[in-house]
Amino acid sequence: MNLILLDDADFIGPNTARLTGRRAQHLTGQLKAGPGKICKAGRRNGPTGEGAVIAVDDDGSVTLEFTALSAPPPPSKVTLLCALPRPKTFHKVVHTATVLGVKRMIFFETYKVEKSYWQSPMLSPEAIAETVIESLEQGADTVMPEITLIRRFKPFVEDQLAAIAQNSPILIAHPGEVTVPPAAAGPLTLVVGPEGGFTDYELNLLQTRGGMLYALGPRILRTEFAVTALLARLG
Amino acid sequence: MNLILLDDADFIGPNTARLTGRRAQHLTGQLKAGPGKICKAGRRNGPTGEGAVIAVDDDGSVTLEFTALSAPPPPSKVTLLCALPRPKTFHKVVHTATVLGVKRMIFFETYKVEKSYWQSPMLSPEAIAETVIESLEQGADTVMPEITLIRRFKPFVEDQLAAIAQNSPILIAHPGEVTVPPAAAGPLTLVVGPEGGFTDYELNLLQTRGGMLYALGPRILRTEFAVTALLARLG
Repeated sequence: MNLILLDDADFIGPNTARLTGRRAQHLTGQLKAGPGKICKAGRRNGPTGEGAVIAVDDDGSVTLEFTALSAPPPPSKVTLLCALPRPKTFHKVVHTATVLGVKRMIFFETYKVEKSYWQSPMLSPEAIAETVIESLEQGADTVMPEITLIRRFKPFVEDQLAAIAQNSPILIAHPGEVTVPPAAAGPLTLVVGPEGGFTDYELNLLQTRGGMLYALGPRILRTEFAVTALLARLG
Repeated sequence: MNLILLDDADFIGPNTARLTGRRAQHLTGQLKAGPGKICKAGRRNGPTGEGAVIAVDDDGSVTLEFTALSAPPPPSKVTLLCALPRPKTFHKVVHTATVLGVKRMIFFETYKVEKSYWQSPMLSPEAIAETVIESLEQGADTVMPEITLIRRFKPFVEDQLAAIAQNSPILIAHPGEVTVPPAAAGPLTLVVGPEGGFTDYELNLLQTRGGMLYALGPRILRTEFAVTALLARLG
């Protein structure tokens, strides 16, 4: 936890927040924080700054005085479109993309996405929010990403992709000869396929809608590491 | 498993290998391979190529005819020096660095590395080899990396670092303002600190021995993702 993320509901005064549970335990346990201790804090979807511990109560709750100091770190310029991986991997992808500052993620269905994944309780909004919040705390960011799950590949690509990409280059991650990324400093849309890859039909459909093959090299990475490597390379 | 990795001990003829266990199960199970099936294969520390299934025996063993076709993928130019993380994370780091083609890894002790990590059975040569082999199979590579564990930070940096780096730039991963990596196409030595970071003394010692601070940005990644992102950026 590299930042204590404060939610509107935590505030008991304009700049005073009262924490219980996980964050309070982190402060009093791992950080051994008592009154006067300063820690890095941020307001959800707002500025980052400092939290000064004012009080630690007998019930373990911690009262912080928050001072806003700066804007959250700049977001990634990448919009991530990723075939839905197995639920455990999905959370790893959400984690690493959130830590790396991605603010829009869309997980979609393809032929090789197992149907059962969509029924997993790990895809509930609550489960996703938990991973997102832990990831913002890890990355010292405050801005919640927007995460969408979409079934049916064909209408997604035909009817929604152009509106999502908004004329930004659409790069389809595909192991092969190293591709030089677009020089443009602007937004990028990155498409990551399922384990086992896109079908020829799917790849073709993406390409007819403006998708360009993009490779870091010939090596094949597990999804969460592929996403990390691609975001590190593309920014 | 994107490549069936063949060991010398598998060969029963000059180009004929007989597989049992995990790889045979992968072929007959996941790939539903019968005689005639061609799969990507490679010889440990040797070429990659094709394996043609000749026979599947009643005991589940699979006989392959191996044809060498090309050199393994080019190695990473990075030598990775990483403070020993918790054992589970250590295996994730070995995995991602191996998949990304790193051929030399050194895990070392620092003040913030928990002493107990060194006693873990997960650090046995057998446990490490298992992760390495699975990672080569994932990355479709054949060349085993050299992995060394080193206690005592000071003599390591003072007496061994220069010989390891051999005049290549030594980059110390350290979150902060984005650093432009050295333009040189040659080898690089990358130093990754422990969770919680190097102490000032350690950082200073590394810097007096030629280490330069290097940052992907202000965000703080978990070790396995930091290593992945750094290797993707540095090649």
